[in-house]
Amino acid sequence: MPEPYRIGIAGLGTVGTGVVRILQDNGELIARRAGRPVEITAVSARSRDKDRGVDLSSYAWADDPQEFVTRNDCDAVVELIGGEDGPAKALVEAALGRGKAVVTANKALLAHHGLALAGLAEENQAALAYEAAVAGGIPVIKALKEGFAGNEIQAVYGILNGTCNYILTEMRESGRPFEDVLKDAQAEGYAEADPGLDIDGIDAGHKLAILTALAFGVRPAFAQMRIQGIRHLTADDISFADELGYRIKLLGIARRFDGRLIQMVEPCLVPQDGSLGSVDGVFNAVFTEGDHVGKNVSIGRGAGAGPTASAVVGDIIDLARGFKTPVFGVPANDLSKPVWADEGDLISRFYLRLTVLDKPGVLADVSAILRDHNVSIEVLLQRGRDPEQPVPLVLITHDTRQQDIELACELISGLDVVEEPPCLLRIEQV
Amino acid sequence: MPEPYRIGIAGLGTVGTGVVRILQDNGELIARRAGRPVEITAVSARSRDKDRGVDLSSYAWADDPQEFVTRNDCDAVVELIGGEDGPAKALVEAALGRGKAVVTANKALLAHHGLALAGLAEENQAALAYEAAVAGGIPVIKALKEGFAGNEIQAVYGILNGTCNYILTEMRESGRPFEDVLKDAQAEGYAEADPGLDIDGIDAGHKLAILTALAFGVRPAFAQMRIQGIRHLTADDISFADELGYRIKLLGIARRFDGRLIQMVEPCLVPQDGSLGSVDGVFNAVFTEGDHVGKNVSIGRGAGAGPTASAVVGDIIDLARGFKTPVFGVPANDLSKPVWADEGDLISRFYLRLTVLDKPGVLADVSAILRDHNVSIEVLLQRGRDPEQPVPLVLITHDTRQQDIELACELISGLDVVEEPPCLLRIEQV
Repeated sequence: MPEPYRIGIAGLGTVGTGVVRILQDNGELIARRAGRPVEITAVSARSRDKDRGVDLSSYAWADDPQEFVTRNDCDAVVELIGGEDGPAKALVEAALGRGKAVVTANKALLAHHGLALAGLAEENQAALAYEAAVAGGIPVIKALKEGFAGNEIQAVYGILNGTCNYILTEMRESGRPFEDVLKDAQAEGYAEADPGLDIDGIDAGHKLAILTALAFGVRPAFAQMRIQGIRHLTADDISFADELGYRIKLLGIARRFDGRLIQMVEPCLVPQDGSLGSVDGVFNAVFTEGDHVGKNVSIGRGAGAGPTASAVVGDIIDLARGFKTPVFGVPANDLSKPVWADEGDLISRFYLRLTVLDKPGVLADVSAILRDHNVSIEVLLQRGRDPEQPVPLVLITHDTRQQDIELACELISGLDVVEEPPCLLRIEQV
Repeated sequence: MPEPYRIGIAGLGTVGTGVVRILQDNGELIARRAGRPVEITAVSARSRDKDRGVDLSSYAWADDPQEFVTRNDCDAVVELIGGEDGPAKALVEAALGRGKAVVTANKALLAHHGLALAGLAEENQAALAYEAAVAGGIPVIKALKEGFAGNEIQAVYGILNGTCNYILTEMRESGRPFEDVLKDAQAEGYAEADPGLDIDGIDAGHKLAILTALAFGVRPAFAQMRIQGIRHLTADDISFADELGYRIKLLGIARRFDGRLIQMVEPCLVPQDGSLGSVDGVFNAVFTEGDHVGKNVSIGRGAGAGPTASAVVGDIIDLARGFKTPVFGVPANDLSKPVWADEGDLISRFYLRLTVLDKPGVLADVSAILRDHNVSIEVLLQRGRDPEQPVPLVLITHDTRQQDIELACELISGLDVVEEPPCLLRIEQV
């Protein structure tokens, strides 16, 4: 009988409890697949007495998860505490520093400290696995590190935040405004009481920083990312997009452009019947393009106990089998400093919604500014029904340089007849 | 500098040449990811002189690929000859027998001889990797063996044959009949001169047998599979399905049912806007459901030099890193004999197209037979415009036991007013 692989689990929230449940439910199957049993030696969380719906009685309890680092009966530390600093970071550093393997779901930690942690892991020949940090149940870290390892990756596009996708889907299906839907999502547990991390795109940005590093072999650079959330989207935007054959999705985009890299999070229009357009509710999706494999799309649940814990357990099984890959796919020393392209040079079609007074001459003024900035119009929707009242004016452009249309928008904003800041969204044909 | 990982490539068709090209194009990147260079030592094919568009001059040439087995400078044999028996099988057996790793794209070989080869690989502690055998560029073998390894898998559904999917997509888009579209597909290289392996579902069946084994930990059992191809589908079927909100896709289906297993290949109706309905042309897709991870869908190119060779190279890189998993996810001795459920007991909605004479009483006769077999009708389309001439009568049933509707179909076929064999297709809500 081969030696069991023994883990300590730090953090018993939704995901931590989910990991315990999977190892209890499917222990025998996992042992056959891993070639040895996977055993929980010890667990740790803030409160010992809370009923978590799983039986923890056969595991040692640690008030301080740092104990796992020195215990000889812990082969790996499973960090599910969360947070980019504090006890999570201290635990991961201590474990790696002693050459102990770490499995984590902590995207903030990796986005902010990924390079240092990768270096530390390598120095001490310790594994640092984090499939659960990005897109929950979709094995995209594995796909980029292993499945597509023969390819130079050209692009990664992702619907990476389930809360945002849920809200956008609800807005479309119900026609209700953002604030209403957010409140309901909070009541139903699909959004946090403090929702900023999700709806301002930060969480998607953390995940994208990891994907960018992996896909292109560069140092994770969360700080160097333009991030736009979904707060400014109106029910009108959603329904105009729908009418024009599109869906609005918060996308993390990392791609090559002009020999350099682009990395950004923003809401975009994607074709309704395309590979990302039909991904609704709490589902996540990742689109990748490699120079030989071509385009791939993976869709799955991005959050929740089951999918995230499944990804954690997948990593543990890999470790039990003795698999170890460099943290970001290549040795930390080989990770290059990313060289960013100027986003202003990006060429796309755009969606532009203006709120204008329904007066003679408005369209002439707007279209003159667009013409002067080389923006040509493909589709125009005007719903002027209320003279002297603000009405939406929506247009889709032909291919346009981003800085041209941004400049035009600034000038348009200054017109007397324009009532609110314009809403400008990129159209991605993905 | 770590030792290179050295391979011999047997077979220089589309895929073999593609593997050479990837290793030449991305050699440096691959070395960084694998932790060591991957080098081609020797190649072998039927004709030495053919121009394949890649430079082979720095590799040794073997007239007989069996040479790779005994060469000390070949760490792995890459078998891209194809065919379930003959030289491919002999080569793989010889290599595994000497403890040498094998990478193959040969689904027929694995579907027919998988159990024996898995046993041989284990006895000799040799790896047998075959990501390229199923769904080309989609890393589904890796997902089932590793990413989802914490899960008991409930179901796998796949669009596994690009030729069929291309033909069905063309039929829908052009409205032309099967035979016409097949001829064009042959002329354009999307279908073989002898197309039976694809359009009769055999190729999809080979792939499904592999997926079933992996997903459920059972012995591959290609011989025990009901396979239906796409020859009998008419342009009418495609357009009726469209009108009813569905697409017709050739699906490989493996799932649990009543504590037993189902494994079958057949054309099915799937919702137009579902995860498989929008997968068109030569793309493949695999839907999986695990007890904790839930539903996942992966879409990508299922064939062609790039995607298939990318999968082969992914396997080679795993081997270069020292990764090895049991051939079908668990030790060969643990693979159980599959216990099949009776397909007659399956409950689904069905699509049924009859070709009937447009005479009074036809509908009454047909619906009486359906009623007598507990088949209740959800939608009925009758296009009777030509009295005394055959016209299509299409219906969608409510949930029905398969053996009930099959029996009803037999009786309906016997009616004087029914002109052709009915076309009965399962509806899958996937």
